[in-house]
Amino acid sequence: MRKLPCVGPTTASMLCLSSTSFLEGVAAYVDPGLPFISLSKGLELNTLRMMSQIIPQALKNPRQPFVALSGPSFASELMNKLPTALVVASKDKKLTNAAQQLLSSNHLRISTCSDVTGVEIAGALKNVLAIAAGIVVGMDLGNNCMAALVAQGCSEIRWLATKMGAKPTTITGLSGTGDIMLTCFVDLSRNRTVGIRLGSGEKLDDILGSMNQVAEGISTAGAVIALAQKYKVKMPVLTAVARIIDNELTPRAAVLELMSLPQVEDV
Amino acid sequence: MRKLPCVGPTTASMLCLSSTSFLEGVAAYVDPGLPFISLSKGLELNTLRMMSQIIPQALKNPRQPFVALSGPSFASELMNKLPTALVVASKDKKLTNAAQQLLSSNHLRISTCSDVTGVEIAGALKNVLAIAAGIVVGMDLGNNCMAALVAQGCSEIRWLATKMGAKPTTITGLSGTGDIMLTCFVDLSRNRTVGIRLGSGEKLDDILGSMNQVAEGISTAGAVIALAQKYKVKMPVLTAVARIIDNELTPRAAVLELMSLPQVEDV
Repeated sequence: MRKLPCVGPTTASMLCLSSTSFLEGVAAYVDPGLPFISLSKGLELNTLRMMSQIIPQALKNPRQPFVALSGPSFASELMNKLPTALVVASKDKKLTNAAQQLLSSNHLRISTCSDVTGVEIAGALKNVLAIAAGIVVGMDLGNNCMAALVAQGCSEIRWLATKMGAKPTTITGLSGTGDIMLTCFVDLSRNRTVGIRLGSGEKLDDILGSMNQVAEGISTAGAVIALAQKYKVKMPVLTAVARIIDNELTPRAAVLELMSLPQVEDV
Repeated sequence: MRKLPCVGPTTASMLCLSSTSFLEGVAAYVDPGLPFISLSKGLELNTLRMMSQIIPQALKNPRQPFVALSGPSFASELMNKLPTALVVASKDKKLTNAAQQLLSSNHLRISTCSDVTGVEIAGALKNVLAIAAGIVVGMDLGNNCMAALVAQGCSEIRWLATKMGAKPTTITGLSGTGDIMLTCFVDLSRNRTVGIRLGSGEKLDDILGSMNQVAEGISTAGAVIALAQKYKVKMPVLTAVARIIDNELTPRAAVLELMSLPQVEDV
């Protein structure tokens, strides 16, 4: 992957970031035509905003060019030039094409997409599902259970995302299902690790006390319940994670609850 | 899971089977009202028929009650009472409800579904995708590549299945994406093993010569090219598997070909 310039307004064309507070500090110096590529996956807890909303608002420029880069990728594999496929999403087609040309190489395929909401919401909520996947591992519930849980989680993310205006095919594609599968079946991310430890019976406070990094899924889980209410979507798996984190439900009780839900027509 | 009766026409209500030739031999003795539960995942190579077509035709009774049972399940986990979720599909809603009641238990959730085509085609084609997943493992291409491949394969199966009359949500649900994920990321099935050996450089003839069981995905791969042509669907990953099996393409050439396909809008 070619180096992207991380720059002020006087130099090159694109800026990568993962911090919102940084933006407010530099807003006055940012060229209003400078495109931003967001690599951040998450939601702002209180406002439920995504990066495509946070960035232009922090910069006080609703038309700041914006691209989300997402998809299933362990950085170490990308650096080792193993084949990887990612998605760049923007409402500005010229900008996605430019980002695609900038980033793609023999070992990195870049697809373009106009559905920014779909790409961002899938990227945020997969971290919550990763906690659920970790719980399955921590409780030794097996692979059948994992596959059922992840399939259900994919559906819940699709139900919510489409109510938020996303296209269902974005959620079932590379930056949705593709990224979810990697995170839930393979990833040793902080989110999945938190889930494994919760499933093994550890308390969240003890887990967080022993970690020196943030697991994004924990704060995003808090947003899940608000989103489920706001958009009137039933999300039993994702809200169960939020309730486990809020200490309202044990992992064992959650499994019993999910297994005894009314068995309805598959949708 | 309760024992299902495997019976002739004079005894209990449901018959499990995985063999079509068996049926023709017993057709004259089968009660025309006897429901069949098919556990078989595959397509008939020359005719491209699925079990929901094969069974009534073999029995010379187009109205023979039929249910397909499918979903992500390792039998050993089910026998160990680990939580598992499956789908029963039939056009006859009373029959799916009866099968659901018969099979469900504290550790087995059964969803019902009217989309028999979707459930059957996903169950058949996931075996071809499992060969592709094995090739990725055999070639040491990494997890990013695996996630991209499986996501693309899910889309290809959805494109084909919907042209065959399936609902897209069946393919993105438990018996589609759920089963595909399990098979591609975890399964040590014969199909995935064939793929691993192909990816490691072994020749198909040598692999098959050393196996004493059938890998269903190999014959189903043959059907993929015919289905892609019949329904005018582009399926680069699944047809690449068929071409590798037909010795028209090496795994390494297939990877290069897939990585250099035109990069289009994500759909």
